[in-house]
Amino acid sequence: MKLYDGMGPNPKVVRMFLAEKDLVLPVQLVDMMKMENRQAEHLKRNPSGQVPTLETDAGTFISETTAICEYIEEKKPSPVLIGMTPEQRGETRMWTRKIDLNICEPVGMGFRYGKGLKFFRDRIHCEPEMSPGAMRLGQANLKWLDDQLAGRTWIAGDRFTLADIVLFCFLEFFGPMGQPLDPALKNVTAWFDRVAARPSAKA
Amino acid sequence: MKLYDGMGPNPKVVRMFLAEKDLVLPVQLVDMMKMENRQAEHLKRNPSGQVPTLETDAGTFISETTAICEYIEEKKPSPVLIGMTPEQRGETRMWTRKIDLNICEPVGMGFRYGKGLKFFRDRIHCEPEMSPGAMRLGQANLKWLDDQLAGRTWIAGDRFTLADIVLFCFLEFFGPMGQPLDPALKNVTAWFDRVAARPSAKA
Repeated sequence: MKLYDGMGPNPKVVRMFLAEKDLVLPVQLVDMMKMENRQAEHLKRNPSGQVPTLETDAGTFISETTAICEYIEEKKPSPVLIGMTPEQRGETRMWTRKIDLNICEPVGMGFRYGKGLKFFRDRIHCEPEMSPGAMRLGQANLKWLDDQLAGRTWIAGDRFTLADIVLFCFLEFFGPMGQPLDPALKNVTAWFDRVAARPSAKA
Repeated sequence: MKLYDGMGPNPKVVRMFLAEKDLVLPVQLVDMMKMENRQAEHLKRNPSGQVPTLETDAGTFISETTAICEYIEEKKPSPVLIGMTPEQRGETRMWTRKIDLNICEPVGMGFRYGKGLKFFRDRIHCEPEMSPGAMRLGQANLKWLDDQLAGRTWIAGDRFTLADIVLFCFLEFFGPMGQPLDPALKNVTAWFDRVAARPSAKA
């Protein structure tokens, strides 16, 4: 395996997942400031022109954080971050998608089409008028998650999983970028501090 | 296994996946018009108050279409709709997420916050001002996919997968609801017709 890495919350999801697995891969940095990710060489690896992208043992390429992490889990199951049984995997995938779609995507949209517009304008299709609503939507769904987290250590209960990694990397990145974590969300705040205390959080 | 089923494109994704697997599950309809999905009994199954939701063989509940389909594939691997190898599964998950996040979610948002607002207003957090931009975003990403599909039979090449099912169910549902498929997207249109010809498309 080889990882094509770069800036932002998505590459960090994979780096943190690898750190939890105690797995070190050869890494090639793709320079997003120089638009390397939008050039032919990288588009052959990932037609979306994004990082992270993983080159597999078979020489194929996989992009999209959750797909990459599933591949890594199959290659190195321990420690388990998705699940040991079909039911556990189902639970992790369920939470990961709820968070991905309902929190991370609106939070990311809010930034890309708002404060990040200058950077993203020439790189992706942007819809600036979606930014304020996307930020409110992300916050509303985070409030929903706060209620769900009552009495739980991790998002999937007592198992630390991919769902925790995905949400942590997004909140950590976008907090200082205009979407700070509301301290009134006591369960999310306490959970965030628990994740931040893991050595992998520095990946 | 038992399926909690209802209206809309998401439940159809799971029904179509089951039809491809030639698998018949006990089904309980959750009446969304009567808000049954938002009542305590269903919220215990899925805290998001949505269908589809699957009760597993172990008596646990999984929601989110892609997580449910992964569980079904693990329980009945044949015919393969996600993948036989880690690389195939990686490819399917990659395409499924690109489609889910970049096409289905904006198309769905465009409807829920626009033409569907009267229905959704009292059910979920709505952001009406996001609707026009979300529809444009969905179309832009569908145009991107049209280029990707050149020369391919299915989204993941020669394998019919979950990615095809997810996209088909969304385009089929939202087409007559104000987001018709642009015939200029020749590859997507031809692909759509190929999927529509499968017996499972009537699920």
